[in-house]
Amino acid sequence: MSKRIKTGMIGLGGRGISLLNLLLDMPGDVEISAVCDILPDRLTTGLDLCRKKGSADTVACSDTNDLLSRSDVDAVIIATSWNSHLSIAAAAMENGKYAAFEVGPAQSEAECNNLVSVYNRTGIPCMMLENCCYGRVEMTLLNMIKKGVFGEIVHCRGGYEHDLRALAEKTSPESHKERSVHYMKRNCDLYPTHGLGPVMKYLGINRGNRMLTLVSMSSKSRGMQDYLKNKYGKDSPEALIDFTQGDIVTTMIKCAGGETIMLTHDTSLPRPYSRGSRLQGTRGLWLESSASIYIEGRSAAHKWEPFDACYDEYEHPLWKEYRAQSVRAGHGGMDYLVLRAFLESVRNGTEPPFDIYDSLSAMSVSYLSEQSIAMGSMPVPIPDFTAGKWIRRKDTTPSIFSLNKVCDELFMGDATF
Amino acid sequence: MSKRIKTGMIGLGGRGISLLNLLLDMPGDVEISAVCDILPDRLTTGLDLCRKKGSADTVACSDTNDLLSRSDVDAVIIATSWNSHLSIAAAAMENGKYAAFEVGPAQSEAECNNLVSVYNRTGIPCMMLENCCYGRVEMTLLNMIKKGVFGEIVHCRGGYEHDLRALAEKTSPESHKERSVHYMKRNCDLYPTHGLGPVMKYLGINRGNRMLTLVSMSSKSRGMQDYLKNKYGKDSPEALIDFTQGDIVTTMIKCAGGETIMLTHDTSLPRPYSRGSRLQGTRGLWLESSASIYIEGRSAAHKWEPFDACYDEYEHPLWKEYRAQSVRAGHGGMDYLVLRAFLESVRNGTEPPFDIYDSLSAMSVSYLSEQSIAMGSMPVPIPDFTAGKWIRRKDTTPSIFSLNKVCDELFMGDATF
Repeated sequence: MSKRIKTGMIGLGGRGISLLNLLLDMPGDVEISAVCDILPDRLTTGLDLCRKKGSADTVACSDTNDLLSRSDVDAVIIATSWNSHLSIAAAAMENGKYAAFEVGPAQSEAECNNLVSVYNRTGIPCMMLENCCYGRVEMTLLNMIKKGVFGEIVHCRGGYEHDLRALAEKTSPESHKERSVHYMKRNCDLYPTHGLGPVMKYLGINRGNRMLTLVSMSSKSRGMQDYLKNKYGKDSPEALIDFTQGDIVTTMIKCAGGETIMLTHDTSLPRPYSRGSRLQGTRGLWLESSASIYIEGRSAAHKWEPFDACYDEYEHPLWKEYRAQSVRAGHGGMDYLVLRAFLESVRNGTEPPFDIYDSLSAMSVSYLSEQSIAMGSMPVPIPDFTAGKWIRRKDTTPSIFSLNKVCDELFMGDATF
Repeated sequence: MSKRIKTGMIGLGGRGISLLNLLLDMPGDVEISAVCDILPDRLTTGLDLCRKKGSADTVACSDTNDLLSRSDVDAVIIATSWNSHLSIAAAAMENGKYAAFEVGPAQSEAECNNLVSVYNRTGIPCMMLENCCYGRVEMTLLNMIKKGVFGEIVHCRGGYEHDLRALAEKTSPESHKERSVHYMKRNCDLYPTHGLGPVMKYLGINRGNRMLTLVSMSSKSRGMQDYLKNKYGKDSPEALIDFTQGDIVTTMIKCAGGETIMLTHDTSLPRPYSRGSRLQGTRGLWLESSASIYIEGRSAAHKWEPFDACYDEYEHPLWKEYRAQSVRAGHGGMDYLVLRAFLESVRNGTEPPFDIYDSLSAMSVSYLSEQSIAMGSMPVPIPDFTAGKWIRRKDTTPSIFSLNKVCDELFMGDATF
């Protein structure tokens, strides 16, 4: 057994508790040294969970700085409110601790640049926990891309299409309220990374390719207000709440390699969940909405084929192993895998597969789309956080998504679960 | 029986012959006075078809002006090459003849403005034959919109996603070659109207709403060249042909009513046919790719419902009648209906339902997207061809798509077929 990874968990709302649960259920190579939240009831909930799952020595901190100054913490996982992710990550790195943070929007270029400067000075890696990169479908597609099944990739789509109108409720939990303020003050792609993260991996972004420019457009804002009017009446106080966030925000991104990406943010209208994804190359395409592919030479002419038919031949080795194991272990899919990817990086002292540049590139789409929309859909440049390093950075593990270490150690190595 | 509509058919390539066939099979209220093509073999084919279908008096013209100067022609239908549609339509209107032209891109704002000035001077209507407005699905959706099923419409998508790589072949027919030149010289949404036409009807464009601005982005160009390389070898002369047209062109359009439209042009990569459509409002949405809808309150929570389930309740009355009749008449669906809409306008001396403003608004997206792409995805203004009249123009027949006359006269009136 390798040395144990001493982990601190910051932010114990719904998402934080869910991640904490996964961490506590992991093989014995992870220990939860400390948990932290500014709200006492959440802190109690987190600590109780640790005790219940056998972590007797976990310490409770009501102040982030207390946790970050502890010597028995190697790495922190940040699941606080959106606006604090990058500043807490920066503080963690200043304290010599690997930082992982939950997905969310970046608020400004300044906070992104600050994180890069901390990284450059300290050399401490960080990672956004973009779990959708680790979805079974997404990893299978990545595997197919690396094997050339789609030919040369030309166009990708992704998005976040999720009916979140309940955010508008005054009675919603504190974490939702914090989020809903964005809908009352901003107009942008508020949540770009679930759609964009996997696409960045498909296109080798920051590894020989990069996103150059984007342009966004917003529809009118109707969904949230319509929801409140219907529920509480058109003369209710709820119906007077003003929402600036457009119901549908579409964003087009141009890459250095000539590929284009189309993103959709659609969270204020009634609909089933989707990430609106599409992947298209010179040999064929995949569509999420119909769960189908068309591959020239393989599929019958002009006919869609169910994507499920691809798993036998192309399922990513990591997922094959994971499914075989998880049948008895009952772990949580992509959340589990993305946490493991981070923890393995900590243990090995290596860069995580979705590194600081990937994280900031993906998150920055939020404020960039805000700028583009505010200027009437003007194109805006996407910052190169790598400062030119993207040109020569290699996608070193082309066939298995920089996860060979995770794969080896989790499934062929000494970890038992 | 009303008076017969004396019709001239200009352009006898594949599409022209197909329309001519439909016209010749129509009830006795239409006669083909003259047919025209500059190519003698096509002219012979057209005339032979007329004779075979019992039109003994049809005259053959090898010059458009000869046809347009005939007194026995009330209306012309133009199915020539893209670049000539608007100039022939203008000449027809100058000669006092209603003009219908096939779909295609506009080449410049100047030719659009010229048509408007001819229209303003002569008062003669014209119409682009945007058949997709008359599709069964599209008319059913329009009916659902007018009944409020989707709530307030917020966002629409459409496109032209059709594997046309065979256009690149040197051995392709003359009409294809003419088209393929655009792929070698331009980079834009070359064919916006099939996707956009129905959406314009959904949103009441030029009737209380209008399209204000658009922005387009193009992927790299790989599909056509890849196709030729694979077929003829990478050292073949074919592999050296240069294509400027990007494989995927996406366009975002903002409307005065706050709605957004997303268009896709995707004709150089292998794929099954689609028009990539989506319609979304405050009560739910429809997706073409999965042929499904979700309507809040009607559909099971978070579950897609097959769109086919809507026909019983919402099929457009015109299509219901049409299907009932066509079982014995064997007519050609939306091509038939769009031709009838034009012919009824001619007979009644009224404006066609897809009028000059609609036609030019839809076609102009081509050169506008070209300008936007050339300027690095800058937003460009969409001309208001109505010169402000859009504000007060009424969508006079909200529930049946300005087709009540067609509907009445074809299916409940005196026309027999």
